Amino acid sequence: MKYNSFNPTQKILMGPGPSNIDPRVMESMSKNIIGHLDPEFIELMNEIKNLLRYAFQTKNELTFPLSAPGSAGMETCFVNLVEPGDKVIVCINGVFGGRMKENVERCGGYPIIIEDKWGTPIDLNKVEIALKQNPDTKILAFVHAETSTGVCSDAMELSNLAKSYDCLTIMDTVTSLAGIPIHLDEWKIDAVYSGSQKCLSCPPGLSPLSFSENALTVVKNRKTKVQSWFMDLSLVMQYWQGGSSRAYHHTAPINAMYALYESLRILNEEGLENSWKRHEAVHLELKKGLENLGFSFLVDEKSRLPQLNAILLPDKIKSNEAEIRARLLREYNLEIGAGLGALSGKIWRIGLMGYGASLNNVKTCINALSEII
Amino acid sequence: MKYNSFNPTQKILMGPGPSNIDPRVMESMSKNIIGHLDPEFIELMNEIKNLLRYAFQTKNELTFPLSAPGSAGMETCFVNLVEPGDKVIVCINGVFGGRMKENVERCGGYPIIIEDKWGTPIDLNKVEIALKQNPDTKILAFVHAETSTGVCSDAMELSNLAKSYDCLTIMDTVTSLAGIPIHLDEWKIDAVYSGSQKCLSCPPGLSPLSFSENALTVVKNRKTKVQSWFMDLSLVMQYWQGGSSRAYHHTAPINAMYALYESLRILNEEGLENSWKRHEAVHLELKKGLENLGFSFLVDEKSRLPQLNAILLPDKIKSNEAEIRARLLREYNLEIGAGLGALSGKIWRIGLMGYGASLNNVKTCINALSEII
Repeated sequence: MKYNSFNPTQKILMGPGPSNIDPRVMESMSKNIIGHLDPEFIELMNEIKNLLRYAFQTKNELTFPLSAPGSAGMETCFVNLVEPGDKVIVCINGVFGGRMKENVERCGGYPIIIEDKWGTPIDLNKVEIALKQNPDTKILAFVHAETSTGVCSDAMELSNLAKSYDCLTIMDTVTSLAGIPIHLDEWKIDAVYSGSQKCLSCPPGLSPLSFSENALTVVKNRKTKVQSWFMDLSLVMQYWQGGSSRAYHHTAPINAMYALYESLRILNEEGLENSWKRHEAVHLELKKGLENLGFSFLVDEKSRLPQLNAILLPDKIKSNEAEIRARLLREYNLEIGAGLGALSGKIWRIGLMGYGASLNNVKTCINALSEII
Repeated sequence: MKYNSFNPTQKILMGPGPSNIDPRVMESMSKNIIGHLDPEFIELMNEIKNLLRYAFQTKNELTFPLSAPGSAGMETCFVNLVEPGDKVIVCINGVFGGRMKENVERCGGYPIIIEDKWGTPIDLNKVEIALKQNPDTKILAFVHAETSTGVCSDAMELSNLAKSYDCLTIMDTVTSLAGIPIHLDEWKIDAVYSGSQKCLSCPPGLSPLSFSENALTVVKNRKTKVQSWFMDLSLVMQYWQGGSSRAYHHTAPINAMYALYESLRILNEEGLENSWKRHEAVHLELKKGLENLGFSFLVDEKSRLPQLNAILLPDKIKSNEAEIRARLLREYNLEIGAGLGALSGKIWRIGLMGYGASLNNVKTCINALSEII
């Protein structure tokens, strides 16, 4: 059987991720492969950890990229911190909160669910009531930037609440990292995970993680073994935190690490604050264009994510929204995102992430939409 | 803080993996990124599945690459097939058998351990005795090609034994895939995992998997949920096996899939049998050179892996073997592998894998060794 060379069309990715990749990052991936215990690679690992600390605004020693996608990053946080019987308050206001609940259950934990309407931020009052009613809660878990709805929740206030009830926090930053402010240490968040393919504009496949000293103490004092061997931080740490004689755990995805390093270097050159400002500025342009076309947003202005624009579909579009997205992809090489779960068929999700958060992309998207609908 | 562009030295990787990457594969990685639900990508996924079926010599419908390294592939086999209380016979004749035992335990299973000396193949008699003594054994787990010792075990006979006791099989093919014959269907193996960075000469980060119908039935009839969300095949399948409307599970590592496709395409062009023959021929040349230098092999001739040559270190080398490897890397840009676990400091592991299984590499290695020792 004959297989042809794969030559994917050049596309503008304005969905919920993956986003387009900076040519510098693309180029970095095909640099010479070296061994995963090579001194040159270990130096690179150290630089990546430093740059991730900058991106998360943290001094956490255990800050590194997991060798798997963001959903494995989520699982890593839960399997290491949750033991059977542990109570975890899980805030659900979209798809990814629901996934957190699944994770708690699969760890044998006891999830206490706080639900908010999809598209609205997490209600602090409900969280406080749940904390009051369950003083033995171990962890408060929430999504900072819900990729399924485009809503931002108040991470600082959620963490303050958790701390005042002596509770750990797990925060999903898959879509927020580099797109909107994150101040891990200032906010005193205990465990976070992210993804490489959103505002870092890297190929998908890696999940940046960071754990506070507090969280690490809890991991070290576990009564039971972590159920996952691959995600067991006590083992992974021996590779990522060892000195010059690091212990082999698994073979790190070398070339993906080159890409992550280059994307973090680009972020460092631009500056975090400038990256946040750029996402905001470009979002405002997109908003103007979308409103001119008659679209309105799912999320209230004050909780809107600039990097993920969830827009409500008028009835005339709803009926054939999948066909319109397919045409955008086919005729304009433009990908925008569908609604997920309960919002499937009701919204579109337009991403402006990392390298893709540009005025050019805004123009392309608005022009294509105005022609096609 | 200033971070420099990372420019790794060009090196010849003759360790236990990662191996050097074919320039065609390197180039493929930096092709345009497209979405993980894009019709073009779904077509690529189908081709990858077909090519992996060829590589494993199977018709198994569920044959796909997991979006994580080989050790996560191992875990995927165990968490899906083992339920609490299940008896699993685990053959340990190296590091990776030991890891299998860890996996069984973390799934709540009951491992029955069969140990063989490191460097010898799995003893069929011991396996048969264990099967006789434990007629309720659910799974026989073994490593086809032990990366830590360079030994090959008789997969066909092990599978025959398992089948005659109505037992499933889990086989590690991380180092064997494309390097020595694998006939999944002929041998009736139920679950296998591999790695992208060995004889496929791809960047590390993906784990090709294949499950028989038999194994899938067991997964479907589980009494308990799979403890891992990320590795739960019932969820992963909805993405990899869905028709045109695939369900989102996680964001696949797009560019890594481009690389895997290209490496499988190269394997298909050469032909599996030719690839096996090339590994064997090149190994014989290396053997000649090593024996001329006075080295002998850890493993008996009939069980030796051509792609991973474990050689015993004479006393004069033992005392400073780490320094010699460091010099090979520094002065000759040549990486060879250290011993792992119980064999640390006692052997070297010289890999001839995929793109790296070439007469040029043999010459370079023998010349460097003859100069330095």
